[in-house]
Amino acid sequence: MKVNSSILIIGNEILSGRTQDTNTSTLATWLNSIGVKVGEVRVIPDVEKTIVGTLNLLRTTYDYVFTTGGIGPTHDDITAESVSKTFGLKYEVHKEAYKILEAYYKPGEFNEGRQKMVWMPQNAKLILNPTSGAPGFSVENVFCLPGVPSILKSMLGGLKNEIIGGEPILSHTISLRTVESEIASSLTNVQQNNKDVEIGSYPFFQAGKLGVSIVIRSEDQSKINKCISQILDFVNKKKIEVVER
Amino acid sequence: MKVNSSILIIGNEILSGRTQDTNTSTLATWLNSIGVKVGEVRVIPDVEKTIVGTLNLLRTTYDYVFTTGGIGPTHDDITAESVSKTFGLKYEVHKEAYKILEAYYKPGEFNEGRQKMVWMPQNAKLILNPTSGAPGFSVENVFCLPGVPSILKSMLGGLKNEIIGGEPILSHTISLRTVESEIASSLTNVQQNNKDVEIGSYPFFQAGKLGVSIVIRSEDQSKINKCISQILDFVNKKKIEVVER
Repeated sequence: MKVNSSILIIGNEILSGRTQDTNTSTLATWLNSIGVKVGEVRVIPDVEKTIVGTLNLLRTTYDYVFTTGGIGPTHDDITAESVSKTFGLKYEVHKEAYKILEAYYKPGEFNEGRQKMVWMPQNAKLILNPTSGAPGFSVENVFCLPGVPSILKSMLGGLKNEIIGGEPILSHTISLRTVESEIASSLTNVQQNNKDVEIGSYPFFQAGKLGVSIVIRSEDQSKINKCISQILDFVNKKKIEVVER
Repeated sequence: MKVNSSILIIGNEILSGRTQDTNTSTLATWLNSIGVKVGEVRVIPDVEKTIVGTLNLLRTTYDYVFTTGGIGPTHDDITAESVSKTFGLKYEVHKEAYKILEAYYKPGEFNEGRQKMVWMPQNAKLILNPTSGAPGFSVENVFCLPGVPSILKSMLGGLKNEIIGGEPILSHTISLRTVESEIASSLTNVQQNNKDVEIGSYPFFQAGKLGVSIVIRSEDQSKINKCISQILDFVNKKKIEVVER
């Protein structure tokens, strides 16, 4: 069974270049490890119409959609309201979330600003937040996470049981002291002989020297092994050095 | 005049989480500085049909499209051929690019693998590469750049005259020693009084303390100034400390 997903990064700060997104690689690494492939990532602005339109497309195209950003207490946090509109659900106070935050903050600190964070689509399922209290939520196959990377990371553990992955996607990397052009045609042959395996070639620069990492990805370890052996074959013939990375 | 653009990151290595994309923030920062807003970023796999379909959508939606990745010498580098199909152009040896690489490499080193990098859409306009020889290219409003961040960065200088920006997008940041919930309603008022200015609120954690950066963006400095003054007004009233970041 193949399970696919998309990631939707919501936030003007990524589009302005001010903030470097790191949530994509965190989520993608984690999703691949539980057998969920990421088919597409989109970064869009804090604009309700854009969020609703994009979500409606992605949620009907992919098994799962993960959003990041826009669930804080300020005016530019419009993800929860946009998700409500996407599914035609009421946007209202989530009683369980209210209780969680009421208990989390000291008496008197659960102010109006913070109370915005318990407004969610009706009957949303909570995603617990062990770092800073305010939960994320999911509606059907759409999972809404915060934009702050450390908080997002801390919430993935609680999400694991909600996501049903397929076969884990296995990966093996062979790093070589060479340049891509030296191995391009040999590697093309290996790819053509192994069409259902994903073979990528990525140049790197390490300790003053050029190299190439070949990444082989498949759900089937025996297929990966076949590629490894075919690659090492031409590597040996060409007397190319294999390096650690 | 408003000028908008989109960024298309082509590469399985980003979707697998193996590689952290940094080209988005490089490109977005540079584009904003020359008055080109980034409306959307997409990350897609090395699949021709997906590249062609996405490019046809983006190039007709945005003034400019910038792609990164997939222009190297290996089998998974399919951007040039995909762009040719997008525009219905022949995919052929680009004579000028051939001359550049023939002169760049030592005699005998301009091998078959490297020659793949001079195959481009017919009559593509070259984007010179001061780092590693192999040029990028553009067709109409689509500009194709490499995926390696240091090489991409070195090519932006040569691209500047090709892009006609609008008014530069100005930005001012006010960083405060507070939490978002303390300022949320005051900031909402400022946003409502200044609807054509983009005001973002971003929590940060620095030297063990929480803070919030408020980012004000507009093409019009006087509008930014008006927001600054309204924000400092409530900051003073609430006795919130302004901090350097």
